[in-house]
Amino acid sequence: MMELVATSIGDPGDCLMMPMPCYGGVFWDVGGRAEIEVVPVHLTSKMEEGDTRPFQLTAKKIEDTYNKARAEGKKIVGILLINPHNPLGDIYSAELIMDILNFCHKHSLHVIMDEIYMMSIFDTEAKYTSVLSLPNIPDPQRVHMVWGFAKDFCMSGMRCGVLYSVNEAVNKAVDALVYFNMIPGPIQHILTEIVLDKEWLDKVFIPTKYSRMREARSYMCDKLSALGIPVRKSPSGLYIWADFRKYIQPLTPENELVLFEKFMDAGVYLTPGIEAFNCGEPGYFRMVFTVYRDHLEVGMERIAAVLKDCAENGLTKPQGANAEASANGK
Amino acid sequence: MMELVATSIGDPGDCLMMPMPCYGGVFWDVGGRAEIEVVPVHLTSKMEEGDTRPFQLTAKKIEDTYNKARAEGKKIVGILLINPHNPLGDIYSAELIMDILNFCHKHSLHVIMDEIYMMSIFDTEAKYTSVLSLPNIPDPQRVHMVWGFAKDFCMSGMRCGVLYSVNEAVNKAVDALVYFNMIPGPIQHILTEIVLDKEWLDKVFIPTKYSRMREARSYMCDKLSALGIPVRKSPSGLYIWADFRKYIQPLTPENELVLFEKFMDAGVYLTPGIEAFNCGEPGYFRMVFTVYRDHLEVGMERIAAVLKDCAENGLTKPQGANAEASANGK
Repeated sequence: MMELVATSIGDPGDCLMMPMPCYGGVFWDVGGRAEIEVVPVHLTSKMEEGDTRPFQLTAKKIEDTYNKARAEGKKIVGILLINPHNPLGDIYSAELIMDILNFCHKHSLHVIMDEIYMMSIFDTEAKYTSVLSLPNIPDPQRVHMVWGFAKDFCMSGMRCGVLYSVNEAVNKAVDALVYFNMIPGPIQHILTEIVLDKEWLDKVFIPTKYSRMREARSYMCDKLSALGIPVRKSPSGLYIWADFRKYIQPLTPENELVLFEKFMDAGVYLTPGIEAFNCGEPGYFRMVFTVYRDHLEVGMERIAAVLKDCAENGLTKPQGANAEASANGK
Repeated sequence: MMELVATSIGDPGDCLMMPMPCYGGVFWDVGGRAEIEVVPVHLTSKMEEGDTRPFQLTAKKIEDTYNKARAEGKKIVGILLINPHNPLGDIYSAELIMDILNFCHKHSLHVIMDEIYMMSIFDTEAKYTSVLSLPNIPDPQRVHMVWGFAKDFCMSGMRCGVLYSVNEAVNKAVDALVYFNMIPGPIQHILTEIVLDKEWLDKVFIPTKYSRMREARSYMCDKLSALGIPVRKSPSGLYIWADFRKYIQPLTPENELVLFEKFMDAGVYLTPGIEAFNCGEPGYFRMVFTVYRDHLEVGMERIAAVLKDCAENGLTKPQGANAEASANGK
């Protein structure tokens, strides 16, 4: 769906801004076929003036990126945001979203709001603002919300995306192109039955999912805390953004991959920040906690063993069979 | 799948030849996104020297089309053939296929062989030659066979296509692009289970399908014969290519659509040759017979009533509610 929207709003060579670290698949999603370039809005662990936490997105950072890209002759046609964010797990406040919408309106930029994790908010206190819920947005013609069943319904393999846009030209273009990406009838039927069963969703599926997510996350956080691994305090997502810098000595991009390979060699897959999420600095991994409890326990034991070895013997390249496996996860 | 192969072998503006009449969706399949132009190899009801029947494809007609297109400055990159043919129901002989492959090899043209009806051959006497079964084809790197579950397995909605090619560059390109067209996991599972059940396919599904097709086709042909409608003698396909010229007076493209509208008005959908299949002359319709027997009976009764009216009162434009419905079927 992302690819169809990108094709519809931009020409090859045009650019979309996107906060980094970010879901790495986006480079192929909008770059592979639509040939749209992704221009990173770099977020870092170092806090700037006005920030309240590391890796914080602000309208100012978007503006700075926009001005720099324009100065370099790039044609920016919009921004792509994931809310809740992957891999950070952050939720954007209504104020931040409005600031971004106003900035984009000023420069006639499209906003693609990817809300694919909108129902993956396990923190009951968290306040979520879908872009569709905002009254009086400044430029509705350039705001496009995408969603899919993969994450919120734990159905990665169903391959069903959704677009909500009031832009008639975009809808017409997507409608024409989606002929090549149609969802099989039986899948449409299954998904329709599921979304129509509102009572089961509200009373069984969603509360069960959230309580299991909270429990798994809490378990993983406790284990990481005992290992001295700081994690980002986020209310959403199927994953934790964890800071392994303490165990990466010296702290280099190469050594982040050495640690990744050591995890792989021990039979556990953690997604490395630079290669998979285009993070601008080494040391961070995304850890998915939405797996069976016994898998989680075995995984955390293996991670603890790898880190113990790093602490005792330093970071040395493993010789194992899995060491060459791909680090580019989603 | 057709779209992915077309994208992989041609650039926007390049051309693929294709015999006409043909499945009309091809213009969007290869034109819509791959931006490949379809150059018709026109087949007509008038027989040329060497022809044994109307609408016959020969290598000579392909060669003439190729030379004419080249003289007009068009860049032909290949030919697209449907075998068995839609809408004619013809099967191409091994000799004809080899002639075409040799011609294409001589001019370095790709051959996309669409065999989506390869298991829809109801005539037990018919000899079918899949391009994959031919030994020593002259240019295997430029021969690409496509197939899908829609027709042969009566599963239009499954949206699963298949490509067989030994061309590594084409396979790599399709492999990269198919990321945007992936088949949902549950569908892959269902289809795998079905194709693995070879005994059920060979002993139950295929023989039952073929005997039902023969019976339905024979019923439809008898009814059409009683109405004086000649049909093409073909061994395959889910449809009949029928000649309604006798009832279209005067015989014009406009009047073909008038007859179409009269059928629609009577509650029966016959696909008109010019609009849906790019047929070069008026009077022909494709009639699908693979429907429930009682539907077929009602349909044939309605057709007979429309034709009776035409014979008695001439061809006059209907005023009915369905008259504006689309004629562009598949």
